[in-house]
Amino acid sequence: MKSTTSLTIILATLVSIGISACSSTLPAENMPVSEAPQADEFSQLLSAANESDLAYDIVKSLTVEVGPRIPGSEGDKRAVAWAESKFNQLGFDRVYKEPVRVRNWSRGLADASVVSPFPQSLVITALGGSIATPEGGLQTDVVMVSSLEHLTQLSPEQVNGKIVFINHRMTRDKAGRGYGPVVSGRVQGAVEAAKLGAQAVLIRSVGTDNSRFAHTGIMRYADDVEKIPAGALSNADADIIEAMIAQGHTVTLDVDMRAKELGWQTTYNVIGEFIGTEQPDDVVLISAHLDSWDEGTGALDDGAGVGIVMAAAKLIKDTIGQPKRTIRVILYAAEEIGLVGAFEYVRANKDQLDNIVVAAESDFGAGKIYQLDTLFSEQGLSQAGRLFSMLAPLGVEQGNNQATGGPDVSMLPKYDVPVVNLRQDGTYYFDYHHTPNDTLDKIDLDDIRQNQAVWALFTAYMANTDIQTR
Amino acid sequence: MKSTTSLTIILATLVSIGISACSSTLPAENMPVSEAPQADEFSQLLSAANESDLAYDIVKSLTVEVGPRIPGSEGDKRAVAWAESKFNQLGFDRVYKEPVRVRNWSRGLADASVVSPFPQSLVITALGGSIATPEGGLQTDVVMVSSLEHLTQLSPEQVNGKIVFINHRMTRDKAGRGYGPVVSGRVQGAVEAAKLGAQAVLIRSVGTDNSRFAHTGIMRYADDVEKIPAGALSNADADIIEAMIAQGHTVTLDVDMRAKELGWQTTYNVIGEFIGTEQPDDVVLISAHLDSWDEGTGALDDGAGVGIVMAAAKLIKDTIGQPKRTIRVILYAAEEIGLVGAFEYVRANKDQLDNIVVAAESDFGAGKIYQLDTLFSEQGLSQAGRLFSMLAPLGVEQGNNQATGGPDVSMLPKYDVPVVNLRQDGTYYFDYHHTPNDTLDKIDLDDIRQNQAVWALFTAYMANTDIQTR
Repeated sequence: MKSTTSLTIILATLVSIGISACSSTLPAENMPVSEAPQADEFSQLLSAANESDLAYDIVKSLTVEVGPRIPGSEGDKRAVAWAESKFNQLGFDRVYKEPVRVRNWSRGLADASVVSPFPQSLVITALGGSIATPEGGLQTDVVMVSSLEHLTQLSPEQVNGKIVFINHRMTRDKAGRGYGPVVSGRVQGAVEAAKLGAQAVLIRSVGTDNSRFAHTGIMRYADDVEKIPAGALSNADADIIEAMIAQGHTVTLDVDMRAKELGWQTTYNVIGEFIGTEQPDDVVLISAHLDSWDEGTGALDDGAGVGIVMAAAKLIKDTIGQPKRTIRVILYAAEEIGLVGAFEYVRANKDQLDNIVVAAESDFGAGKIYQLDTLFSEQGLSQAGRLFSMLAPLGVEQGNNQATGGPDVSMLPKYDVPVVNLRQDGTYYFDYHHTPNDTLDKIDLDDIRQNQAVWALFTAYMANTDIQTR
Repeated sequence: MKSTTSLTIILATLVSIGISACSSTLPAENMPVSEAPQADEFSQLLSAANESDLAYDIVKSLTVEVGPRIPGSEGDKRAVAWAESKFNQLGFDRVYKEPVRVRNWSRGLADASVVSPFPQSLVITALGGSIATPEGGLQTDVVMVSSLEHLTQLSPEQVNGKIVFINHRMTRDKAGRGYGPVVSGRVQGAVEAAKLGAQAVLIRSVGTDNSRFAHTGIMRYADDVEKIPAGALSNADADIIEAMIAQGHTVTLDVDMRAKELGWQTTYNVIGEFIGTEQPDDVVLISAHLDSWDEGTGALDDGAGVGIVMAAAKLIKDTIGQPKRTIRVILYAAEEIGLVGAFEYVRANKDQLDNIVVAAESDFGAGKIYQLDTLFSEQGLSQAGRLFSMLAPLGVEQGNNQATGGPDVSMLPKYDVPVVNLRQDGTYYFDYHHTPNDTLDKIDLDDIRQNQAVWALFTAYMANTDIQTR
């Protein structure tokens, strides 16, 4: 952690923008909308956000007092109680929760070792939702492929009875664009391998680090294809198998995974609101997800998001006061196992989606925000000019108008809900993602403060102006 | 891994030094000693070392084909066979081994979790040599101290029946100077805690990383003090306990460690020699240790050293030919559990220590060498001037004349054996040291080539000149 920041410069710039916004020489898109808060309110908010440790303290509280919280687990139940309590402590006007049914899956032990040619232990983890290996584990040869696509080109004779090792590699990228090309191997690997008769599938972790952690994450089965166990190897362990195969050896592994389905549980989307004074039915929806995988403490994924959006709303309340539109903070359940809480939210609230002015989620760690993408009407985009000007001194550029929202709001555009993406620097996000190494020490205080400031300004602008995003 | 290097510049500099060394204008300490090899031989050696992957390939072979090799284990036996085979493959004149008796210790499972106030799992590992916890683990409160010294200031009332948590912190340092002030907590913590009635001791890992690995390493018991289990927490997990205590809570842990003593085994110092053509009884002793801890593959500790010293000798043989003095490469057994192989070597060879021209060990990873410290006679130091000049273009400065040698040769100065330290940049060494994360991917090809080049030049100079170090 480093401490702050070029606050003075940013404030000076902001105030100057605010003042300019009231002058008559501005182009149309920077004209203040009616009822807009004064520039000094935004500058006070920014000042408060830049000096506050609130987002960080919330993540610390969640990771220390709850820790891992896989959907439906005891940890998840404690997280729900924690979230209700934290919303109440922070003085939200209305705190409630909405039930979400989830299947609780338990990772259990996951051991693997090379039996031959050169015996040694390997670091693996089960992929989320995987079945266990047969009692006593399974011992068989490996067939290595370079990608999921490569796997689909093999014949059953090449794969039958073996462990498929998908040796794809994720590339590092600020926007996380390395994830897409390999995550299909994680999600679909078991199905494609099973179609060819494999006994199990192991993937090189979907991760960019060289720390010896295996990265978990959800995988899927198909109803008409046999279920086989699916795991991930750390990058270092994938290297070991690759090197043995490169020497011309047949590699035999022993894999023992004891994952379990524990049945259905009820968890909750937990929601806190500051009710709007003028348009209480207009909702500015900011969100994160409360659940996490079970090996780390879910500091980056998505404790950071939880801290950022709760803190943003609270700072607005404390600095500017009650918002004109309602600010709704949703902490979604069960994002990790397929956006389950988010889909349930849409199902349960379908007739109120028209009230949402904008929806957004913070779910990419705590790296600094560098771009604001929108999915606004032309009118809304023109009314957002002053917002872009306010965010520019914080390093946030105007992006495209084709935002998809974060994962848990990604289904809302289908219902004509405007969304934004506050794009974060994710260069190192996939070093820690879905590993035991996702812990509080990975969050830089300066970075999370910048996030909290950007979200506070964005949310205040959406809630306290009459910007028409639709 | 990056690839090479400003070879041309270094070679040009070296050749110019070599040529200068033959001219009459040089100061006395740079005069060539009799029978010195020609400068072009050193430059050929450097050129070969700078282009060779040999040291890296040896580490890769050891880590892939053997992997973990805790003293006395099956992995250790395979390492001994690997070392003999590798020396033979490389064409050493004489390959032999000397028996070393060791107690084989097995880590077994090590689990810990917070029972209260906030249940969550912790990442721990057993310290090397620790006893197990009682069957079923132990569950008791924590008393936190900031250092071993702080612990000794507590009263039995404060400690009795508890788990002592030594929350010392290691600082990052190029020369590894952060290790000394905290390693005493690891080695002596159990004795000091037991004196005050503790049930167990857990330390914040002796490590500089924020990866969620616990660092193992040897610990000691005293004959007259009760033995208690000793473990290490990762830095992130130490943070969690510290945060709970900072909130004013009493922290109760459940700790289950199943370490075992497996009894006495015979392992070996494995030795390869190129026999000197002119003074075969004069020995240039270069070394590393063959054993490793059991969780990583021992790439940095001390696979790198093994690769560097084997490669250095082999490159001399291939480039310059048979040395004038004997080059003896010793891969010591059981360094990690107390320099056991090294002490046995001294015991078994006490009457031949006078033959050693110089002894040195590479055991600090693969970071670049920046300094050569010596422990030479005045005459030897003056004769080493040309060596220092040769190493300068590789970034190696002349250091002090108070070298202690590496760990396994550190007892030799007592027997008047000259030693050197080829000091490596250890800035990141303790990020990986004694963790599962000590794997091949941590070695930079450029860095290990520089090490191989420096060791090759140093060894050739010691073996092929008549420098009198005593």
